[in-house]
Amino acid sequence: MKRQELIDLIRRKKSFLCIGLDSDLTKIPQHLLTTADPIFEFNKAIIDATHDVAVAYKPNFAFYECYGTKGWSSLARTIQYLNSTYAGQHFTIADAKRGDIGNTSQQYARAMFDPTSSGLDFDAVTVAPYMGEDSVKPFLSYSGKWIIVLALTSNKGAEDFQYFSNDGVNLFEKVLSTSSQWGSNENMMYVVGATKAEMLTQVRSVVRDHFLLVPGVGAQGGSLQEVARYGMTKECGLLVNSSRNIIYAAKDEDFATKSREEALKVQKEMEELLATQQ
Amino acid sequence: MKRQELIDLIRRKKSFLCIGLDSDLTKIPQHLLTTADPIFEFNKAIIDATHDVAVAYKPNFAFYECYGTKGWSSLARTIQYLNSTYAGQHFTIADAKRGDIGNTSQQYARAMFDPTSSGLDFDAVTVAPYMGEDSVKPFLSYSGKWIIVLALTSNKGAEDFQYFSNDGVNLFEKVLSTSSQWGSNENMMYVVGATKAEMLTQVRSVVRDHFLLVPGVGAQGGSLQEVARYGMTKECGLLVNSSRNIIYAAKDEDFATKSREEALKVQKEMEELLATQQ
Repeated sequence: MKRQELIDLIRRKKSFLCIGLDSDLTKIPQHLLTTADPIFEFNKAIIDATHDVAVAYKPNFAFYECYGTKGWSSLARTIQYLNSTYAGQHFTIADAKRGDIGNTSQQYARAMFDPTSSGLDFDAVTVAPYMGEDSVKPFLSYSGKWIIVLALTSNKGAEDFQYFSNDGVNLFEKVLSTSSQWGSNENMMYVVGATKAEMLTQVRSVVRDHFLLVPGVGAQGGSLQEVARYGMTKECGLLVNSSRNIIYAAKDEDFATKSREEALKVQKEMEELLATQQ
Repeated sequence: MKRQELIDLIRRKKSFLCIGLDSDLTKIPQHLLTTADPIFEFNKAIIDATHDVAVAYKPNFAFYECYGTKGWSSLARTIQYLNSTYAGQHFTIADAKRGDIGNTSQQYARAMFDPTSSGLDFDAVTVAPYMGEDSVKPFLSYSGKWIIVLALTSNKGAEDFQYFSNDGVNLFEKVLSTSSQWGSNENMMYVVGATKAEMLTQVRSVVRDHFLLVPGVGAQGGSLQEVARYGMTKECGLLVNSSRNIIYAAKDEDFATKSREEALKVQKEMEELLATQQ
């Protein structure tokens, strides 16, 4: 998906909501457990109920890999369902936090972006920056595909290394300034946690126009208003993720309706923010 | 596998060789492509031919994920074969470079260490440190299992961030000193690239007794003598990986014999180093 197509989606849906598909057998409605592929049935129901409200979906790979080949099969069915039933209607993110030496990242890129090889065909993949340029660049060789580089994450452990500083420059700022030269705002985004929304000012001073994927609104404690205040650009420039608050809104047979209601609440708030800040 | 068991394996086999199973359909002998599971057949042949020479095997996950569910199935069959046919005879490493917020890393840990959930049962997993303590700790909650934290990698991109320094301390040294407090030398190792073997002196000044997984000897250009000189401890303290030089030694029907010959060359060199340096 091209940058302009994503911006158009956001304007049309009046939403910059990304729904995280952290689908866990112990948390999904129990009546689904009797189906052949409970994780896929759960994802399908969530997607069908929220497809017009969400601009992006983000399966979290750990929640599939923990079930081995069966989990990977549920993951493949989920992205194939999105790409067939709702073609072009969402930005899809492989939340996999990958990154390795060049020839290995090349294989991870095939896994995420080449459906003839892996069965998966995401628009974007999250990548870890620790191994530097050649660990990240292979993902950028796919036209129309994106990487979303970890910059400042929303967890407590972010403090361990991401604020390690040289001459007043934190590691996460160094990651932003260095890595932004490897691609452009047409194929790179950044993960920036929402727990300290004012940090978005620092982030925006380095990457003014890049889209930011912001986790941590909701279950992880961030405020949508604060994120928009410090991080929104004229073209929105934000994808804000919510996972548990939406997908686990209820556990009864009508769970997807409840998920839609939660997603709509967030979307309404986003609609106001888009109207006032643009 | 416990630390002492690994040390005993190294002494018995007179080897600290780890063989990297970066098994690629375009590089394995072509006659295997007619089998139902070429990647597994290739791995099985390599393992059968080198099992007494190698102390560790390290499947590189990217080379399996690029084939989707079929790749994950080959991966599961490989680790199951190792754990059944050669139980207790090797240290097995899931080279997956994982790491995410706590509840997500918990799922990745299940993927690598809980065969009842995922079908995989490795002794260790490589992890990326960028997200800090809570991204790493869930892997340490499995008794007898290990994490191998990226410290100083062997690729060119290592220079981008790993040498970012504060007051004379490089990021990779900060990663070593901080993360080594999260576990012990009984459940943590570090990835340290071999391209600049003298850097091992700096690494050893921070983590004196931890095992180091050293990639980059062979195809990536490091020297085994240099690695032993700067990195070896009384208990060896090293696992040196070789992938392409061994597994792609030949492409004919007798490829596994050639792989054994290459592995034996390395093992003989290791035997001498173990004898002279201990």
